[in-house]
Amino acid sequence: MSHRAAPEHTHPDDVPLLTALSALADPVRIQILRELAGSQEWTRTCGSFDVDVRKAALSHHFAVLRGAGVVEQKDEGARRFNRLRGEEFGTRFPGLLELVLRGD
Amino acid sequence: MSHRAAPEHTHPDDVPLLTALSALADPVRIQILRELAGSQEWTRTCGSFDVDVRKAALSHHFAVLRGAGVVEQKDEGARRFNRLRGEEFGTRFPGLLELVLRGD
Repeated sequence: MSHRAAPEHTHPDDVPLLTALSALADPVRIQILRELAGSQEWTRTCGSFDVDVRKAALSHHFAVLRGAGVVEQKDEGARRFNRLRGEEFGTRFPGLLELVLRGD
Repeated sequence: MSHRAAPEHTHPDDVPLLTALSALADPVRIQILRELAGSQEWTRTCGSFDVDVRKAALSHHFAVLRGAGVVEQKDEGARRFNRLRGEEFGTRFPGLLELVLRGD
């Protein structure tokens, strides 16, 4: 049994533009989003991404992504799984996630 | 005669995605871009924007916008005029500037 609080989410419809841009303007978060986009939904745990940051920093990055409405998380036991909220985020900010995912 | 160096520009084609996102993820710069979008090209001096920042900070904001390829500047005597590089920037990052300009 996990004693963590369940992750809090923000729906993309409630996300200000500035929050979305700030969330995406970070190399670690861009890497997470690209890996998520290349994976099946709900298959990726937070520890499974190829990013070189400590656990506390990683938790912060995921909190920022949830707060921008671009990532959804759910806990199963001690593991936290992720999915990209591509459709809802894309309705709120058309084309923005595509820009981030297409590479440079 | 102005003794300032002419402003250095970066073409949008040479701007990394992260640089563009970081440049746009700022309330002062968003305000500048929106005012520019509502003005005729080359009519707005740097001091003409409704932003509450000191001159040095304002110069920094314009340097960031130039570096992201989204604003072009030219000097006429002591005055520096601005235009939005909407078309070139839009070719490099489709839809991104529109998101910023459409409001929240």
